[in-house]
Amino acid sequence: MAEVVHMIDSEVFLAFSTYATIVVLKMMLMSLMTSYFRLTKQVFSNLEDTSLVKTTEDRKKLVRVDSDVERVRRCHLNDLENIVPFVVIGLLYALTGPDLSTALLHFRVFVGSRFIHTVAYVMALPQPTRGLAFGVGLFTTFSMAYRVLTTALFL
Amino acid sequence: MAEVVHMIDSEVFLAFSTYATIVVLKMMLMSLMTSYFRLTKQVFSNLEDTSLVKTTEDRKKLVRVDSDVERVRRCHLNDLENIVPFVVIGLLYALTGPDLSTALLHFRVFVGSRFIHTVAYVMALPQPTRGLAFGVGLFTTFSMAYRVLTTALFL
Amino acid sequence: MAEVVHMIDSEVFLAFSTYATIVVLKMMLMSLMTSYFRLTKQVFSNLEDTSLVKTTEDRKKLVRVDSDVERVRRCHLNDLENIVPFVVIGLLYALTGPDLSTALLHFRVFVGSRFIHTVAYVMALPQPTRGLAFGVGLFTTFSMAYRVLTTALFL
Repeated sequence: MAEVVHMIDSEVFLAFSTYATIVVLKMMLMSLMTSYFRLTKQVFSNLEDTSLVKTTEDRKKLVRVDSDVERVRRCHLNDLENIVPFVVIGLLYALTGPDLSTALLHFRVFVGSRFIHTVAYVMALPQPTRGLAFGVGLFTTFSMAYRVLTTALFL
Repeated sequence: MAEVVHMIDSEVFLAFSTYATIVVLKMMLMSLMTSYFRLTKQVFSNLEDTSLVKTTEDRKKLVRVDSDVERVRRCHLNDLENIVPFVVIGLLYALTGPDLSTALLHFRVFVGSRFIHTVAYVMALPQPTRGLAFGVGLFTTFSMAYRVLTTALFL
Repeated sequence: MAEVVHMIDSEVFLAFSTYATIVVLKMMLMSLMTSYFRLTKQVFSNLEDTSLVKTTEDRKKLVRVDSDVERVRRCHLNDLENIVPFVVIGLLYALTGPDLSTALLHFRVFVGSRFIHTVAYVMALPQPTRGLAFGVGLFTTFSMAYRVLTTALFL
């Protein structure tokens, strides 16, 4: 990591910026998907939110739990648990000056695995589709962390 | 993003550092608010935590769910889902060298929207206050992502 | 933060990279621990996941909530709520050019506190072990945020 200043200007860093932005945007879409399901299925967490779809007095019944909404929310939380480590470790990895082709491979495999994970989760595809997508993403991040720790270790 | 090295020393980057720190500190205060409600209302998730307020044998009853605590926790999770994307995309955005005034507008609107969101959530203000605050924050982050992708795209 | 470009090449930045990677890897292990408990205790959130351990028709019973799994999940969420702020504020802190020894003290105390927090949470150690570990980590992050805001304030 001795020449990190030059690295931040590199194609690897541009590639990281691109893929990190794409996968974070994908994560943000889960918020919109949750809102969409809540409004169309009339399922809310807060009493004050029910006024968005109803004004009569039986609004309390709309504060409930729905399995489809919970599924999207679990998918969103899984994104947070996996995309945040990718962004942090991927940023440090990009600064270690890896080969462009190796870096692109890591970024593309990770982002691809998370798109597959989302489709598999939301559509409830048979396992082990979602499990494999999760595992591939995890392995990609571990691989980048290995390079960061072997290149930049300073305890 | 060709002159990113110069950008990291810029006023835009200082502004990003300031607003990112402020909004992350706001998010951390949700932890303290949860702890405060748990201790004062005697509502816990773990049996071992009940020893903090009680030593008698009816401690098991304190392991329960409370609507005020859950409200703060939902607000905290919503912060994670929205502030993390802002920090990631905002950092990359700051490195693309935007105008200082445009950047400040994005940072201020986002941070302001999250403070309004928190007040609206915790105090259960009537909708669409919270929904609008959420939407404005989301839009601000999308706007920064648009600049990152149009400036730094490298697939 | 005027000489931040030089800082990114420094030992402080290498130390940040190392400790941030270690503590993020620790957080990712919570995913694997959850999967391990789910598979060995046969407790799932999604019906399609039950096919991983059973093929007969009573699979629906495996979609349930288990207190050990929920404990690991609460620990994971607490990691997200605390490690994400550390990474964001720690990165900006590293760029303000602190003394190496002061920076190392912050990074080591934080990472140590999160390992103790995880052991205390998963093994349900008596309070206030976990509470103290949580508080020490929070205080360390606040201390770094104080330096960022006093060094780089630009509103």
